[in-house]
Amino acid sequence: MRVIPESHLDLLTRPLFAHLATIGPDGTPNVNPVWTIWDGEYLRFTTTTDRRKCRNVQQNPNVAVSINDPEKPYRYLEIRGVVERVEPDPSGTFFDVLAKRYGLAYEPPLGDAERRVVIVVKPTRTTQQ
Amino acid sequence: MRVIPESHLDLLTRPLFAHLATIGPDGTPNVNPVWTIWDGEYLRFTTTTDRRKCRNVQQNPNVAVSINDPEKPYRYLEIRGVVERVEPDPSGTFFDVLAKRYGLAYEPPLGDAERRVVIVVKPTRTTQQ
Repeated sequence: MRVIPESHLDLLTRPLFAHLATIGPDGTPNVNPVWTIWDGEYLRFTTTTDRRKCRNVQQNPNVAVSINDPEKPYRYLEIRGVVERVEPDPSGTFFDVLAKRYGLAYEPPLGDAERRVVIVVKPTRTTQQ
Repeated sequence: MRVIPESHLDLLTRPLFAHLATIGPDGTPNVNPVWTIWDGEYLRFTTTTDRRKCRNVQQNPNVAVSINDPEKPYRYLEIRGVVERVEPDPSGTFFDVLAKRYGLAYEPPLGDAERRVVIVVKPTRTTQQ
């Protein structure tokens, strides 16, 4: 079964910012713009272990993601899903993939590489317009 | 006290899409792009009583909003807050204000005016970059 509708797949293949919602320890939502990449099965995000979103998903794996089309802002995709795992990225290799995808020039090695992780999300359902 | 930092106020005065995160009855987050307007004290959103985000905030008033700058996408504002009230908008007057702000042409009267409401959010804290 395809979770992501073909009609909105371009919102994941283009390097658009995604707004990732997580739930804090007090049960209230957090949301901010992040880089993402989709491999057909998982959405992946880069962060560091000291960031709020990483602490949040380790306590509560339920997340939601909103991406809209900058050219047609009423066209959007919401993905709800579950964090399956948080993987270490101590070499910054995954950060590098995303930095290239989003056109960020930076001077390697990454200063925070030892705290870098990959948040791996399995989509469960979507809504779109 | 100013909740919204002066440095990021333009992200609220410009007609940018906001990504509104709410929490569903099962405790998982939802997030999607919405119109908003800021009056210096409250953020307001238009929706209808049958939409998920309206049902969500009536059960759980904690919300979060993410807006980033389309010209400098790393520049963003996250607002966390609480829904103080949901007000009826049976004439669609508030919808009309937002439709003008976001440049949407439509043929009044609104078909769903009898279900239109205004979600009124009091910001409690922000994070930004």
